[in-house]
Amino acid sequence: MTIQTISLLPAVFETVLGQSMMFKAQQKRLVKFIHHDLRQYGIGPRRQVDDKPYGGGDGMLLMIEPLWRAISEAKRLDPRARVIITSPRGERWRQSLAAAYAAEPTGLIFVCGRYEGFDERVMSLVDHAYSAGDFVLTGGELPALVMIDSIVRLIPGVLGGATSAQIESFADGRTLEYPQYTRPEEFNGARVPEVLLSGDHAAIARWRQRQSKKLS
Amino acid sequence: MTIQTISLLPAVFETVLGQSMMFKAQQKRLVKFIHHDLRQYGIGPRRQVDDKPYGGGDGMLLMIEPLWRAISEAKRLDPRARVIITSPRGERWRQSLAAAYAAEPTGLIFVCGRYEGFDERVMSLVDHAYSAGDFVLTGGELPALVMIDSIVRLIPGVLGGATSAQIESFADGRTLEYPQYTRPEEFNGARVPEVLLSGDHAAIARWRQRQSKKLS
Repeated sequence: MTIQTISLLPAVFETVLGQSMMFKAQQKRLVKFIHHDLRQYGIGPRRQVDDKPYGGGDGMLLMIEPLWRAISEAKRLDPRARVIITSPRGERWRQSLAAAYAAEPTGLIFVCGRYEGFDERVMSLVDHAYSAGDFVLTGGELPALVMIDSIVRLIPGVLGGATSAQIESFADGRTLEYPQYTRPEEFNGARVPEVLLSGDHAAIARWRQRQSKKLS
Repeated sequence: MTIQTISLLPAVFETVLGQSMMFKAQQKRLVKFIHHDLRQYGIGPRRQVDDKPYGGGDGMLLMIEPLWRAISEAKRLDPRARVIITSPRGERWRQSLAAAYAAEPTGLIFVCGRYEGFDERVMSLVDHAYSAGDFVLTGGELPALVMIDSIVRLIPGVLGGATSAQIESFADGRTLEYPQYTRPEEFNGARVPEVLLSGDHAAIARWRQRQSKKLS
């Protein structure tokens, strides 16, 4: 799967997606990232990308033309790719969407808004708008990273054998994980629950089931 | 306000919080970031930070002792700081929480989990656990960044005069922004709504009000 991003902060994507599991996924050629610097698609010698809103208002909006140019280039590289924009007005991102995107090899193009917003006409160029949650951020980079991370780790082969319990825990979007403990058995007077040290697998399974319910 | 982070990927924080508005907030001395590398607090010559879960299960958990050491050091630097951990089992992050934290100068220490999880005993060292949403990520860095970004931009002085309409739009956590447009008036046949070009401020305000309702 090819995942492209369009933003004014390509270095953010380079750094975050160059770490840990996202780095390994690229090494394994399970995903390819291309990060477009929106500034390169700006207008005129000063590469203008934003302007004041019609009808008045604070802040600067991302202009339609640089976005159109950048999306056109991304689509030229991957004609069947779907275009996603991050917007507080979009549908709430959730695990089932990550799983659905991860299950298809179709490329994705993430267009990152800014906190002031973008020219509404960009909506005619995008397939879906998603929001990371009910909070305002300075830009669309973090929401795009959240979406990309949640998709890529579900691409078959990325997690390898580590089909951690937590992967399943959100399969229905609501069930939560039970408490977990590792060495040492006692730390500053706090002990691991005895049942987990018992070796009694049935008892451990029952305890975990009870603890999950308590949390959900 | 001092914001500290504890994670295995301090470079992610350095890069993302070194950009744009977060960079300016530091320059203005409205916020100070300190990023702790959890590996430095690991155990033994190999700086071990994780181990297998008691009672069985996939994945590796962050151990209590390195977390305790790192949190102790962060608290030594800022004794009154509150400790926040990112966890899928935490309370859902939202704009009202960002506003509440931004309104107080008390420092914050963000402890980043990993997708496999952490030793539950760390919960006795933290004041609050928050989740970015109903999705699984490879680590707690992106949720922590989302929380930090949403708090810092609300610290008085960070946004400066740019009290953009979108700032207010989430004040109640639900109201959403109206569509906005900037130059040119026409692009590829798509025109800016005439009312926004009319100069009739009352009509523009009514139109925006209607459009916001349509979206909410």
